[in-house]
Amino acid sequence: MKVTVIGCGRWGSFIAWYLDKIGHQVVLYGRENSKHMIRLQEKRSNGLIEIPKTLRLETDLKQAVLSDVIGISINSQGLRNLVQELRSYHPKHKYFVLCMKGIEISSGKRLTEIIEEGIDSSNKVAVWLGPGHVQEFYKGIPNCMVIDSKHDKAKELLVLSFSSDLIRFYYGDDLIGNEIGAAAKNVIGIAAGMLDGLNLTSLKGALMSRGTREIARLIKAMGGSELSAYGLCHLGDYEATVFSQFSHNRRYGEMYVKGEEYKDLAEGYYTVEALIKLGKEYKVELPICNAVHQVLYNGQQADLELEKLFLRSLKKSFK
Amino acid sequence: MKVTVIGCGRWGSFIAWYLDKIGHQVVLYGRENSKHMIRLQEKRSNGLIEIPKTLRLETDLKQAVLSDVIGISINSQGLRNLVQELRSYHPKHKYFVLCMKGIEISSGKRLTEIIEEGIDSSNKVAVWLGPGHVQEFYKGIPNCMVIDSKHDKAKELLVLSFSSDLIRFYYGDDLIGNEIGAAAKNVIGIAAGMLDGLNLTSLKGALMSRGTREIARLIKAMGGSELSAYGLCHLGDYEATVFSQFSHNRRYGEMYVKGEEYKDLAEGYYTVEALIKLGKEYKVELPICNAVHQVLYNGQQADLELEKLFLRSLKKSFK
Repeated sequence: MKVTVIGCGRWGSFIAWYLDKIGHQVVLYGRENSKHMIRLQEKRSNGLIEIPKTLRLETDLKQAVLSDVIGISINSQGLRNLVQELRSYHPKHKYFVLCMKGIEISSGKRLTEIIEEGIDSSNKVAVWLGPGHVQEFYKGIPNCMVIDSKHDKAKELLVLSFSSDLIRFYYGDDLIGNEIGAAAKNVIGIAAGMLDGLNLTSLKGALMSRGTREIARLIKAMGGSELSAYGLCHLGDYEATVFSQFSHNRRYGEMYVKGEEYKDLAEGYYTVEALIKLGKEYKVELPICNAVHQVLYNGQQADLELEKLFLRSLKKSFK
Repeated sequence: MKVTVIGCGRWGSFIAWYLDKIGHQVVLYGRENSKHMIRLQEKRSNGLIEIPKTLRLETDLKQAVLSDVIGISINSQGLRNLVQELRSYHPKHKYFVLCMKGIEISSGKRLTEIIEEGIDSSNKVAVWLGPGHVQEFYKGIPNCMVIDSKHDKAKELLVLSFSSDLIRFYYGDDLIGNEIGAAAKNVIGIAAGMLDGLNLTSLKGALMSRGTREIARLIKAMGGSELSAYGLCHLGDYEATVFSQFSHNRRYGEMYVKGEEYKDLAEGYYTVEALIKLGKEYKVELPICNAVHQVLYNGQQADLELEKLFLRSLKKSFK
């Protein structure tokens, strides 16, 4: 298939590399002035791996949207603007695959909602979620991921076209749960990093147990299936997010509590703001998200907030 | 309170040390010829920490059972024999606290069932479960654990008497779920070690997601609460079991697939045999337990069994 990937950062350039590798005709789009695109054009490398010649680099969005399938991997809060831009090219009968995790802060909306509202209804929207480090995929270490969509045929087409020995795709069956779960795991990742930074790594077990619970409650309140919090999109991504040295969110949390400088804010920084809003809207208590939010947005001390969470609660039940 | 801990291995000697430290009168019992007891008597050390003088070492079981509370930390398959021995001293109105994880292979029984059947009904039986590495507790790194019992007052007494800044106890409310979950986590730990040994560490996310699911199904079929698989006793213990360098079961799985020599069989080796039986009895599919069992008991190849589990399944659903 002809596939375009919009967004040429670490994950976007990996997806383009992967889809090229398994035989698709791939275009990788980035803005002309993007530092990632400039490096790709100059060095044919994304800093981790060489980009094969069969993969076409493109900086004209009009050309990029001509493919049948359009993957998108940009920062979540920028999706609405991209959709506005895409609209001007009137894409129709295409498959849009969101390869990104987040929730829009201003609206509390899921990413598929934002794109569906902005484009013609002949297009079908799907998500590609789940665990996996690009560094390990490049080494040939396989993993399982998930594709979900409201449209069964789109889901089947994408799973069949995108599966390989490197990535085994499963069929998602709960778009709300998978999107919220995938976004929320980044916040749990930040909390995990804070525990690491505070020398409380042992509490990551308790964090996993309570983290999944609160996200399960939110998903249920929003109309999804509680069990999705325990699926690939959320708990299944904890190895990558809560434990791995490669996890950007975990590292960000660790550096934050250690007072070290970090270059970029982690995606979970934005997601936690959106989750707090959703928690209020759906009347769901989110103690871990709340603790992370108190620390990052209100300057509360991480050690006190996290100890309160696990070690000083007077409630009888753990959940 | 006067507390005896029966079993002076790594965990038993830690519990005795801990209860002494928080102010109880503690007796640590071990058989006269036990290598652990001999070392304790000779060096006043368990190899990791010095045992304080206030802690009495005892090799006479008759004397040991005089305490009000009797903790037990031995290997699961030996519990029935110990209970036989305890019977001869006719203990009454005592609290027995099982600080151990497992299922009896021959009967498929939970450990509280074995002890309750063997002693006078005036005694109350509880379990002390959850995450924590002795190495980290000795360094002062805190964790959360759980105490469960059919008897609410026993549970409350134990939680209140045993909680401290180092261990925050929560009240369990599902004895079946907590016992099965705690035992089963050792099998997931072996599977995790196998993945590590096969350079498939990334699949530990998928392992956590599917591992909790199958154990949740088993717990439910046995009459417990599905959610317990996601509580402290099981998922909450994954940091310690699935990721930590200190996890005996994880290390055993890793050494097994690498063909390295190991000194002791891990507890999960016995538990998986019991779980397979329970799965048949309650008609619950346990794919991960089954894969571990196929490898350890039937000589199947770990790489094939584990890849089949995650990467080659033709089923649409992940769960």
